[in-house]
Amino acid sequence: MSSTAVAPPACLRRPLVVPRRFMFGPGPSNVPPRILEAGANPILGHMHPEIFEIMSDIKSGIQYLFQTKNSMTLALTGTGHTAMECAIFNAVEAGESVLTAVNGIWGERAADMAERIGARVNTIVAPPGGCFSLEEIEKALSKHRPVLFFLTHGESSTGVLHPLDGIGDLCHKYNCLFLVDSVASMGGAPLCMDKQGIDILYTGSQKVLNAPPGTAPISFSDRACQKIFNRKTKPVSFFLDLSWLANYWGCDGKPSRVYHHTGPISAFYSLRESLCILAEEGLENSWERHRKVAEYFHDGLENMGLKLFVTEKSARLPTVTTIVAPPGYDWKEITAYIMKTYNLEISGGLGPSVGLVLRVGLMGCNSSKANVDMVLTALKNALKHCHKSRV
Amino acid sequence: MSSTAVAPPACLRRPLVVPRRFMFGPGPSNVPPRILEAGANPILGHMHPEIFEIMSDIKSGIQYLFQTKNSMTLALTGTGHTAMECAIFNAVEAGESVLTAVNGIWGERAADMAERIGARVNTIVAPPGGCFSLEEIEKALSKHRPVLFFLTHGESSTGVLHPLDGIGDLCHKYNCLFLVDSVASMGGAPLCMDKQGIDILYTGSQKVLNAPPGTAPISFSDRACQKIFNRKTKPVSFFLDLSWLANYWGCDGKPSRVYHHTGPISAFYSLRESLCILAEEGLENSWERHRKVAEYFHDGLENMGLKLFVTEKSARLPTVTTIVAPPGYDWKEITAYIMKTYNLEISGGLGPSVGLVLRVGLMGCNSSKANVDMVLTALKNALKHCHKSRV
Repeated sequence: MSSTAVAPPACLRRPLVVPRRFMFGPGPSNVPPRILEAGANPILGHMHPEIFEIMSDIKSGIQYLFQTKNSMTLALTGTGHTAMECAIFNAVEAGESVLTAVNGIWGERAADMAERIGARVNTIVAPPGGCFSLEEIEKALSKHRPVLFFLTHGESSTGVLHPLDGIGDLCHKYNCLFLVDSVASMGGAPLCMDKQGIDILYTGSQKVLNAPPGTAPISFSDRACQKIFNRKTKPVSFFLDLSWLANYWGCDGKPSRVYHHTGPISAFYSLRESLCILAEEGLENSWERHRKVAEYFHDGLENMGLKLFVTEKSARLPTVTTIVAPPGYDWKEITAYIMKTYNLEISGGLGPSVGLVLRVGLMGCNSSKANVDMVLTALKNALKHCHKSRV
Repeated sequence: MSSTAVAPPACLRRPLVVPRRFMFGPGPSNVPPRILEAGANPILGHMHPEIFEIMSDIKSGIQYLFQTKNSMTLALTGTGHTAMECAIFNAVEAGESVLTAVNGIWGERAADMAERIGARVNTIVAPPGGCFSLEEIEKALSKHRPVLFFLTHGESSTGVLHPLDGIGDLCHKYNCLFLVDSVASMGGAPLCMDKQGIDILYTGSQKVLNAPPGTAPISFSDRACQKIFNRKTKPVSFFLDLSWLANYWGCDGKPSRVYHHTGPISAFYSLRESLCILAEEGLENSWERHRKVAEYFHDGLENMGLKLFVTEKSARLPTVTTIVAPPGYDWKEITAYIMKTYNLEISGGLGPSVGLVLRVGLMGCNSSKANVDMVLTALKNALKHCHKSRV
């Protein structure tokens, strides 16, 4: 027992070397030094009063970011996927009906998650790049009578910003909870949780917020809590059980907190800092900046002869732009050329958009006209230098 | 839509202030500057080649730490609880039999998790501070015929280091997988995954490894993979589905990796650095240092008249020491006095040990005789200054 059979690996004798890179893909985006420095503060305990205060600040920051007064507002340990599972695991019991809107990868993923826990899942499907009308949504709600309707606000795989007005009311008419994924759009496009009747809303730390990946803000309406806290069965996950999380985050009104899991302390520091930065700029200013920069970017792309994948102007996501893959080119050669030449990441498609698009994300601190100019120059030179077949 | 109803919170106008503290509770432990600095490196993409190399280094480091040649070795995005769920979610299908050994809180929690996914759960129970004999374990295996047996190596709620030799063979005799929780012990007490026939093993980043909480190393034997990859049903969680994780971590031998979730890049940097530090010291040296420091600590406690909760010397966890709560004192007053006077965390009990013990964790860089002296002085002064009733 006292002798080891596996030797220390030689690779760990090399120091960590991390290149600096322009992170203009669909996320994670660049993290400014101020947020990196916050994350490098010394560790505190997950039950220390100072951490509870930091968590309380984070909660207030998320309420502002989401435009909600929900007391059931917190940040999960994990990514957007964790939040998607948390929403579905808590809001749905086996055998219940779930409806997901599929116009890219995220609706498919939500359907997969709901199926895994034994829900009866139906989908409404639009082609990648498309949206759903209120009529289509109402027809499906009335037919399938789901307990939960899933819709993606910012479809990062296709570049679609889906309109939200009126959908919450429709869901509530059919006694259904309205769940919205705003991982790619939150902070970069207008969204008001309470006003728009959203029952469960989540995002990730690594997009517009410019924090490292690893935490996921989420909020639940009273209507959602009403269903969740009257379940007949326990959610499949202890880690994501909202009754435990609500207590750890001080959202349940109980006088003392019980240990649930060890929160990611360093990630709380950086998430808090990112919310400070957003509050300093102001949410409406951030929305407006992303809108203007995206318009400037889209004009520049069209001026150089490229086509935008989402034809309807108002449905273009201001944070992640999808460009029709330039005909005659291998898209992989373009992204590789730009990475090699400029140390700049743009990416190809994801899921249903693979091969169809190039994706450029300009989120949070990355959303600026100077960065647009850099991307346009990189794209121009890529099209000049990469191999083009006759079309 | 363009006007916001929730104002920016005033609390986010205050700068983040984090006190320095001696983290001598059961975790998280102090994170040395070298690891904090590694975590503050600029962000890379979760699919960049440099990140795949860092993940590969982490994998090699975990293989060394765990003493295993398993190719199915990786770090989860989450904490020890995430790893516990990942093990159970993948290795067990609804209706299957699971056996957990309960001698503190962790066996209870594993039972709760297995029940949530519809397993038939049986437990063997020892009083807090106790262990299980091979005979007891074999009797239960033979009676309940579980597909999975859960045991905690380092029971941080009670301070027990459970012997492991022989249990793997017993499990395999009954065609059962052997799952070991080593969150509190890994790196601080001898454990050799392959030699001891452990099928699934996990730990957390925030204990002996001295990295921030948020990642959880885990490894699966071929025997475990054989069962997991021949399941009839999908695991309840997409996020923790090993077939997806295996591909993201390059453990499945496939030539290309598919996007699964956005890995916690900053936490990968710090986890890699913590594994470098461990490899530099050497695993056996680390075991030996923790053993010697714990003995020095336990002698010091007994010399000042305190009693250790675990009576059997060889069953004392070298990383987390449980001290019988001093009779006549309110344990909360003691921990509060020490925090206030020395900015030093020690903690009370957890689960079945609440009110019975004080817990002191000296893990990784915190395990030193100088720190023991500091804790002993703090305890002596606490017993002098805190209120004592007549016993």
